[in-house]
Amino acid sequence: MTTQTENSIFPKGDKLENGYFTGDAFLKPLLAKDKSNEFAMGSVTFEPGARTNWHTHPKGQVLIITEGEGLYQEKGKPAQPIKKGDVVNIPENTEHWHGATTDTKMVHIAITNFKGEENVIWLAPVTDEQFTSANKN
Amino acid sequence: MTTQTENSIFPKGDKLENGYFTGDAFLKPLLAKDKSNEFAMGSVTFEPGARTNWHTHPKGQVLIITEGEGLYQEKGKPAQPIKKGDVVNIPENTEHWHGATTDTKMVHIAITNFKGEENVIWLAPVTDEQFTSANKN
Repeated sequence: MTTQTENSIFPKGDKLENGYFTGDAFLKPLLAKDKSNEFAMGSVTFEPGARTNWHTHPKGQVLIITEGEGLYQEKGKPAQPIKKGDVVNIPENTEHWHGATTDTKMVHIAITNFKGEENVIWLAPVTDEQFTSANKN
Repeated sequence: MTTQTENSIFPKGDKLENGYFTGDAFLKPLLAKDKSNEFAMGSVTFEPGARTNWHTHPKGQVLIITEGEGLYQEKGKPAQPIKKGDVVNIPENTEHWHGATTDTKMVHIAITNFKGEENVIWLAPVTDEQFTSANKN
């Protein structure tokens, strides 16, 4: 018999209502940029079906998947499955999205580098058609 | 009844044999410094009794505790208990050590910033007397 235990590292935080996410995504901020750290850090929880908009980072971002399974897709490439224990090193100025799958939750720590005061440029939502297609790969 | 499950995010990696750790500590490298990321990142597992030497970081370090409970101590201050879900923002040029307690394991992700090509200056071991004293706080 397998016993499933809830074993999250961080609290789920607050639901993201900024218009840059589709579905139920939550943010627990972990660290602000400061004099030593040229990045901000937070834990993001994507419930099944949830994902970011398409976006770019002017100086890149690192994702550490801490729970579940989800998807990462760069524009013009097939979506890649990502799961607990994976580290994704996202290049600068590369259009992409990340999130859950249609039926699995995904939690990641995001370490987002700053270029000056800017660390993300938000673009269009990932449409239901794009998301459905990504889940079929 | 509580069922304990092993639920580590990363493999334990290799035992650290570099002389800068006391006891059984293990490193799984996660990310090297590159053109976007001005830091290196790894997961460090400290078995009970294991700890780093005293050391400093020229541009600071962030620890994310992912499992268990341990200790963090800055020189001249009392040791602080740290546990799963804690984030420790270690200032630059501040002498300190971190590790397990005498009887609990601790695992953390370490995000270590670089100043030029340097990210750590190793100092003396934490003696058994210092470690025992830290565990009594």
